[in-house]
Amino acid sequence: MAKVNRQWILKKRPVGEIGSGDLALVETPIPALGPNQFLARTVYLSLDPTNRIWMSDMTQYMPPVELGAVMRGGTLSVVEESNHPDFKPGDIVSGIAGWQEYSVENGGQKLPRGQVPLSAYMSVLGATGATAYFGLLDIGKPKAGETVVVSAAAGAVGSIVGQIAKLKGCRVVGLAGSDEKCRHVVKDFGFDACINYKTEDVSAALKRECPNGIDVDFENAGGTILDAVLENVNLKARIALCGLISTYNAKGPVPGPYNFANILMKRVTVEGFIVIDFFPRFGEFQAEMAKWVAEGKVKHDVHVVKGIENALSALNLLFTGGNTGKLLLQLSGEP
Amino acid sequence: MAKVNRQWILKKRPVGEIGSGDLALVETPIPALGPNQFLARTVYLSLDPTNRIWMSDMTQYMPPVELGAVMRGGTLSVVEESNHPDFKPGDIVSGIAGWQEYSVENGGQKLPRGQVPLSAYMSVLGATGATAYFGLLDIGKPKAGETVVVSAAAGAVGSIVGQIAKLKGCRVVGLAGSDEKCRHVVKDFGFDACINYKTEDVSAALKRECPNGIDVDFENAGGTILDAVLENVNLKARIALCGLISTYNAKGPVPGPYNFANILMKRVTVEGFIVIDFFPRFGEFQAEMAKWVAEGKVKHDVHVVKGIENALSALNLLFTGGNTGKLLLQLSGEP
Repeated sequence: MAKVNRQWILKKRPVGEIGSGDLALVETPIPALGPNQFLARTVYLSLDPTNRIWMSDMTQYMPPVELGAVMRGGTLSVVEESNHPDFKPGDIVSGIAGWQEYSVENGGQKLPRGQVPLSAYMSVLGATGATAYFGLLDIGKPKAGETVVVSAAAGAVGSIVGQIAKLKGCRVVGLAGSDEKCRHVVKDFGFDACINYKTEDVSAALKRECPNGIDVDFENAGGTILDAVLENVNLKARIALCGLISTYNAKGPVPGPYNFANILMKRVTVEGFIVIDFFPRFGEFQAEMAKWVAEGKVKHDVHVVKGIENALSALNLLFTGGNTGKLLLQLSGEP
Repeated sequence: MAKVNRQWILKKRPVGEIGSGDLALVETPIPALGPNQFLARTVYLSLDPTNRIWMSDMTQYMPPVELGAVMRGGTLSVVEESNHPDFKPGDIVSGIAGWQEYSVENGGQKLPRGQVPLSAYMSVLGATGATAYFGLLDIGKPKAGETVVVSAAAGAVGSIVGQIAKLKGCRVVGLAGSDEKCRHVVKDFGFDACINYKTEDVSAALKRECPNGIDVDFENAGGTILDAVLENVNLKARIALCGLISTYNAKGPVPGPYNFANILMKRVTVEGFIVIDFFPRFGEFQAEMAKWVAEGKVKHDVHVVKGIENALSALNLLFTGGNTGKLLLQLSGEP
């Protein structure tokens, strides 16, 4: 038991972009296992916009990570040693073990091996896929023939949202940050159109690509993109508010959309949601999504960066648009 | 038929507060009646925040009033002469005859006489009451025991919203612009508490008066008040977005709430609505509201200003907080 654990500790709350002194990578010994505990080796760490939220003390849906604590993050791990009757070495477990190479656990969700690549449980069949599934279907409530707009369309969630919306018979228009991403979104994920929000006048482009107006917006971005959407919404449109990544690195208060009054004028519903609210219905999602994946109807990208020392530079890709698809940090080899 | 009609004509779109040259009071002859037309003498003109919206060319729920046209407004009129088989002199008609003393009509909603004061049809039993009724019950969906916050609580809509919420077993906290209004709201309309938003720290006061948090917000104001509400919302709160009067006189783009992200974090639903969407269900509202009014369970204030020449100064009361209850301009005597 001489193994060393490397962990990212939150030292202070970032102001704006994450600075080099905000988190520290430290080495600690792995504690001995007590009764009913097991040692889990982290294989994949999920990197998500919400990590940035958890580092801050803004109002949020879980307590912020405490200063001095291991950074929080979703994980897929393999059991290495166990004093727990239900977990044996080699078992695959998903959980929230945080930004560290090893963790001592007393429970978690066991995952089957060999059915799909393990990374799928961290993306299309995990919280990412569930965010897309419940956010679009339960909050956005698209009907066949309606027009659905998806921001961060080349991202982990957005790319899946668009494919589900196509399965439901909608016109789907994505927003992404490069021509290359836009081509990918249309060609590989089957969106009807994709707008490069960095080079186009977004409102004019939405008007062009949504000739019948916008009925559903799956909102991951906020800021000027949400304002452009609100300029083009139809009566009774639904905005499924999933994320506001354009605002998470702000150094001060961020104004809401300048077209907020259109929520009133167009009788729009804006509904915030967090995937954890849907965990009781996870089985329903996994059954349908696994079928779609097996049939090739829903594809997904995984963007893997290796090495715990690269956690911060990898996370930053989410804010610079440097990733395409689900961003994972691989900390050790798949079993 | 030598009568003269006085009309307010929209000359140009106001920028900021309505200026003296934006509308003009003109005298015109009353046209002769054609077949199936009747001449209506306006008794009451409804003055509402939405009048200011209709003067502008902002995105809105009806076409803006055209430049050169009679200003739009809800009216209660009495038929003076008629070539229409269904309308006879003395009949009371509600409609949208606009800001003028006489109008030539070919239809309208006939109202019974003698059951309630005529002004009630312009307030608690009219669109004002329906706004409160459907906005609170259909959009806010309050449950007994929940906490409901109402901005512009001494206003025509807000005062009725609070009383309905009390009938539904909620804790009701109002926001109004003077201590006198606050006392009135608590004493006469039965709110549990009322906050003077001009003298108190609104967020701290909401925290104090809503010890269990805010479940429903009936939003008439917007701006800093909505931000304070968003600081204090519970998980799954509902914001019935009825109006944004704090923004209608703005000279340029107005930012949405700075706490917009709390819609996401607290999984709030913000839903805009306009009472016209509920006109098909007007009978349902009138039946229940008339009962509540007859039983003394819902009271209402009417603030009457007389004389068409005073239309603009009267309308301005809505923006300075100068009125209490439903603001009506009386253009001629009740029949």
